[in-house]
Formats: sequence, C-alpha cells, structure tokens
Amino acid sequence: MKLAKQLTHLGTETAFAVSAAAAAWGAKGNKIYPFHLGDINLPTPENIVEGMQKAIGDGYTGYCPGAGIPELRDAIARDVGSKRGLQYSAENVSVQPGGKPVIGKFLATVMNPADEVLYPNPGYPIYESQIEYQGGLAVPYGYIETETGFNLDLEAIRDAITPKTKAIIYNNFQNPNSAESSRQEMEELAELCIAHDLWVLSDEAYFEVQYSGKPQSIVSLPGMRERTVILYTCSKRFAMTGWRLGAAIGPQNAVDIISKFNTNIESCTTHFIQRGMVEALEGDTSGPDNILAELRKRRDATVAGLNAIDGISVTAPNSTFYLFPNISAIMKRKNITDVNVLMEQALTETNVSFCTRKHFGRTVKNEMGDYLRFAYSGINVDNINEGMARLKLFFDK
Amino acid sequence: MKLAKQLTHLGTETAFAVSAAAAAWGAKGNKIYPFHLGDINLPTPENIVEGMQKAIGDGYTGYCPGAGIPELRDAIARDVGSKRGLQYSAENVSVQPGGKPVIGKFLATVMNPADEVLYPNPGYPIYESQIEYQGGLAVPYGYIETETGFNLDLEAIRDAITPKTKAIIYNNFQNPNSAESSRQEMEELAELCIAHDLWVLSDEAYFEVQYSGKPQSIVSLPGMRERTVILYTCSKRFAMTGWRLGAAIGPQNAVDIISKFNTNIESCTTHFIQRGMVEALEGDTSGPDNILAELRKRRDATVAGLNAIDGISVTAPNSTFYLFPNISAIMKRKNITDVNVLMEQALTETNVSFCTRKHFGRTVKNEMGDYLRFAYSGINVDNINEGMARLKLFFDK
Repeated sequence: MKLAKQLTHLGTETAFAVSAAAAAWGAKGNKIYPFHLGDINLPTPENIVEGMQKAIGDGYTGYCPGAGIPELRDAIARDVGSKRGLQYSAENVSVQPGGKPVIGKFLATVMNPADEVLYPNPGYPIYESQIEYQGGLAVPYGYIETETGFNLDLEAIRDAITPKTKAIIYNNFQNPNSAESSRQEMEELAELCIAHDLWVLSDEAYFEVQYSGKPQSIVSLPGMRERTVILYTCSKRFAMTGWRLGAAIGPQNAVDIISKFNTNIESCTTHFIQRGMVEALEGDTSGPDNILAELRKRRDATVAGLNAIDGISVTAPNSTFYLFPNISAIMKRKNITDVNVLMEQALTETNVSFCTRKHFGRTVKNEMGDYLRFAYSGINVDNINEGMARLKLFFDK
Repeated sequence: MKLAKQLTHLGTETAFAVSAAAAAWGAKGNKIYPFHLGDINLPTPENIVEGMQKAIGDGYTGYCPGAGIPELRDAIARDVGSKRGLQYSAENVSVQPGGKPVIGKFLATVMNPADEVLYPNPGYPIYESQIEYQGGLAVPYGYIETETGFNLDLEAIRDAITPKTKAIIYNNFQNPNSAESSRQEMEELAELCIAHDLWVLSDEAYFEVQYSGKPQSIVSLPGMRERTVILYTCSKRFAMTGWRLGAAIGPQNAVDIISKFNTNIESCTTHFIQRGMVEALEGDTSGPDNILAELRKRRDATVAGLNAIDGISVTAPNSTFYLFPNISAIMKRKNITDVNVLMEQALTETNVSFCTRKHFGRTVKNEMGDYLRFAYSGINVDNINEGMARLKLFFDK
C-alpha cells in the first residue's frame, strides 16, 4: 500500500535516537549520566496535582471547549500579559496539548505553499520539519558566537528576507544555545519584521526559566503584538513535560484559526488538567520557584564541570537548561571530524549521554565550529559532578 | 496580517453552536434537556483514576515515547486484536490524544493532493473537513433507510469509485445514524476495497458500545488487515471523553508514519494517563460494564419517548448512543422546511436540545428525508422521560 508523497518532507527529532542509544547502553548494566533530553526529573508541584485531582472528583472528565476552558484562557492571558506589559484576554489564548502543537498550527495559519519562513539553526528541529512538510521553504539563520554566548546573526536574517518571506520563527532563550537577545538586538529584529510585514512565532518555552533579571518578549515592542503568536508551555516552568499543556497567544484572528485546528485535530486538551493549571497560575508559586532554584544549582555544576575540561569554555547562561559548548579544539585533539562519533565514543567510554549540534536542524554551509548540547534538567548535582569528571578524563585524553 | 489561503477549506463541527445555544438558553434559567452532545455524564471508572494517580505518585510526569508507552501499546494490541480475531503487537499501535487525531493523521499518511476519498454522509463532520483541508476531494456516500435502521448505499459507493480514489472512511456503528453492517454488507464493502486497492480508515469509536452480541470489524476479513487503520478511542467505552486518549492501529508502515506525526505535533500523549489506562484494559471491567448498562436504560427510554411521538418510528439500535429519527412527517405537519428551524423552536418551546442531520456533513443532492440526532449519553433516564414528554407535546401540535 502506497503512502503519501509529501511524507518525504516530514522530519523528526533525531535526538530520540540518542535516548534510545542511552537506554540500550544502560540496559547493559551501565549507569547513564543523562544530559541528552530537555526533560525534568523533578516532581510537578503538588498544588497542580491536587487541583487536577479535585477537578476529576468534581466530574470534569467530559469534553470542554476546543479553545480551552474560559478560566484557564483568562488565567494565561493575565499571566502572560502582565509579564510582558500587555493586556491580553481569553480571546487571545488557545489552549494546546503542549507547546509543540503551536508550531505546526501557527504555520498552517499564516503560511502558503512556497512561502519562505526564516527559522533558527541550530534550533528546535520541528521548525524545519513543519515548514517543509507544509510546503514552505525553510530558510535557516544562525548565531554568532561571542565570549559570553551567542548573538542573532542579524545580517544573515536581513540578507535572507525576500518578497516571499512570510514569517520568522524567533526563539529567544534559545534551545540549544541559550542565546538571549539584548534590547537592541530585539529592537533591530522587530524593525525587520515590521518593515517586511512578517508574522512572528515567538517560541517562549523558556521565558520563565530565568536565573536572574526579568525576561523580555519581542511582543512588547511597538508594532509587534498584532503580528506575533507566542508559543507558551507549562512544561518547563512547572516540570510538566509529560502533562502536555501549553497555549498559543496572539491576535484574535490567528488564535481563532488555531482553535479551529484544535476542533479538527484534538477536540480539546485534557479537561481536568486545565482545571488544575488554573490553580497553579493564580496560586502559590513556591513549586516553580523551587524547581528554578534546583536548576540553577545544576547549571552551575555543569558549567564548572565543562570549564574544567581542556579546550571548553562556557559562560553560565541566564536562561534555559542547556549548555552548548564549542568543542572544536577537542575534535582536533582527538582527530575526530564527526561530532556524533565523539558522542558515541563518550557514551561507551564514560556513560555520559548528550546531544550534538546535528540534532538541531540540518547543518548549513560554512558553519563554524562543532558543538555539543548538554541538558541539565534531568540529572541531579551529584550525578552531574560524577559525569563531568568522567567526561573530563575522556576529553582530556 | 493575512492568513493562509488553504484555510478556506478548513471545516469545523457546527454542533458546537448547538451547545452554545443550549447553554445560553440554560443561562436564562431554563432547565435544558441535553440530547445534543455525544459526551457522557457518568464518572470515569475508579480504577482508571487510581491508576493515573499512582502513576503521578511514581513520578511518571515527564515525556514518554511519541508512539506511546510500550505497556499501553501492548495492552491495546492485545485487546483490539483479541476482539477482532487478529494478532496485533505494539508495533501496530500508535497512541493518540483521543480518537479524533487519527482522522487527519491517517489522511496525511495515505492521501496525495487531488486524491479522492469516500466518506459517510451523514457522518462525523471532521472527515469532510480534513479531506478537503488536506487537498483531497471529499466524495460522500450515503445510507438507505430501512424498517430497522440504515444500510450502506453500496451501489453509490461502487459508482463513486474512480481511478483517483485512494481511500474510504468507514464508520460501522455509525455516528449519527447507528448503522451497523450485516456480515454480507461488510464483505461486499471489503471486496470493493480490495478490488480497487483502497486504504480504509475504520472508525471504530463505538465498537465496544454494544448492547448485545459481538461486534465485527472489517479488518478481520481476508485482505483487509494490511490496508486498514483502526480509529480506537477510550472515550466512549470508559466515559473518558475529556481525558483525550485513543490510538491508531494498523499496518506498521502506516503506524510508523502516524507516530512520526506525533513527534511533530504533540511530542507524546499525557504520560500518566497512559499508565492509568493499562490497568483499565487489563484489570476489572465492571466500570465499563456499568456504563453500558446505564446507556442501555437510556437508549430504551429515548426510543420509547420518540416512538410515542406521532410521525416518528425508530428501532432501538444495537450500538452507539445515538438515535436518528426521520421527522419528515413532522416537518410537513408543522409546515417547516428547514430542520434547524425546528431545532431552534424545540429548544425555546420545550428546552430540549438536539442536533440535526445538518450537523453531520454537507447535505447532498436528492437527499431523502429530514432527520434529527438525539444523543442519550449525557442525560439520565428521568430527564429523558421528562424531555421526551415535552417534545411530544410540541411535535404533536
């Protein structure tokens, strides 16, 4: 039986192969040091669990509106708006089973076949997959490495915009490289979006995973609100990755369409989970505060461990739970040209599992440097220290 | 900001407007008799809730595989296979956030633009919406009314098949008309599918809502397994509509692609809900048995209530929780030509809310008769009796 032709354009997350390799190596009796997945091995705050259980007891096990229950749409609108200095209301919010569904639904809402969409590369691989699967042209833009992290390659973005460019995907607090725009960088990007009348998907999955200061959103800049859809997720802040709860927030014309996709695809997002989440957004925040405090310790341990390795130098990022060290010097020292070979050797030699730049979009021409991605959300400090010591022995060899 | 052109082909479920009208009428202080929604006002069996709560306590709040946890894929494979006389394994199962996601993912897996897909009409309106949104040609087929229910219009199906026909959607135990194929009808349909090498989406959402006898699946017939994807849902049997849990079951080549769509769209289905479901499929079945017993009482009350109305004659269907009376005689008596006008009058005159044929796909040329759809899953027997008595007064007028 033949399958659809368009499937040749459907991508995936190759990082799952890393999980599978780690699990297979672990099944042989090896203690794995898991730095490969952006999952969180901390319990979801108790008030969310209790809110959900109460909702089940109260009988909220049937369907709810496709766009989400009004109480949660209100709560998200208030929370997201107040943190960005904007007034949103329930009409601007479409509840989703996670943050990820927003990517495909945003593209389906604004993009026509053969339209061009700019997306970050390295970046979350589903951007590339969904743009191409839906018939668009995926145009990558990169980052410039500095002493203290990564900057948007604004020149590359400017050069890549054509009359066919319909949208840009912008992931401030970036996965995998933790890039965070300065105010000036964000303003320059906004100017480009307005000048070329682009839609913006602002992937703000890590907006609230901030170790100091207040995060900024491009949606707050003049002229941006009406062209920006925010990808919002409960996964990271609340350690709810497996719960599948998020939202699209944006202008009502786009959000109405996104909710129409909900009716076509999922009917609704799990009803009682939405009710539990209202409590989490409006109630006690000690749960997410504690999660963040633990992540900060892990960040510092991982940064220290990596910097102890000869040839690696990373600055502690202010957000996300990822580190993206340039390991070109180590590749040279070990005479390895494929970063995934280094990854495979590290797993069997040290039991340390991590992803590489290759898991975050197709590499582009003339890319500078080789990178690994370490996620410290799924491993505690003791194991971070152990794993990093083992990795140092192997990398320094 | 402009939206995508293809959105003109995206449909929706117009039945939600009926819910909204009923809610608005109820908000004015009227006691609504809700026959409009296929939702279930019975609690989910306690062992599923407990299994889920245990899973949360055990820390299953993180991501799980996109195709579903192996234990649930195994359990569904065993349950679905054994009830259809087939051997399925985990590789044949892709867990979904509900049954509905299977519709769009099946079409995306097998259909090319401009391919023709046959679908039941009247039928679940998302079939039509997804075929057309994804660029296919939606070709409706209908049913023939008999003394005891509805038969597939096999002649119409035969005539509608062309060299461009890629697939057929078949909804045995049908929503809205409760049609159930005889063995012969199913064999004739299977013959057509094989002769024309069609893919089949067998929507078996109501396979286990059976008041007597054993349900049959077209997948069990020779030559059908390799071309059939089953839409499976936990929603109806287990009163779990708001939980969002279902699966696609079929040949591995199609199921692998469907799981790849999961990775692109949802990452995974809520982790701890999957763990709770394993218990439900393998453990005590008194919960779903009691749900079915209650639905049977409601069916009998609704059938009796409708048959007491002058001009309505329905047979108690053996499956689903829908009744689809032909009300042409009442339309004529009341001199109403639009069945939705009758619906609106009934709501404000009697507080009884229901859907009509018009909520189940665009009507086709030369359609015979006018129909209402009554769902008895969300209303208890006392209210069924009250509502039907009120409706009789109004219809008999």
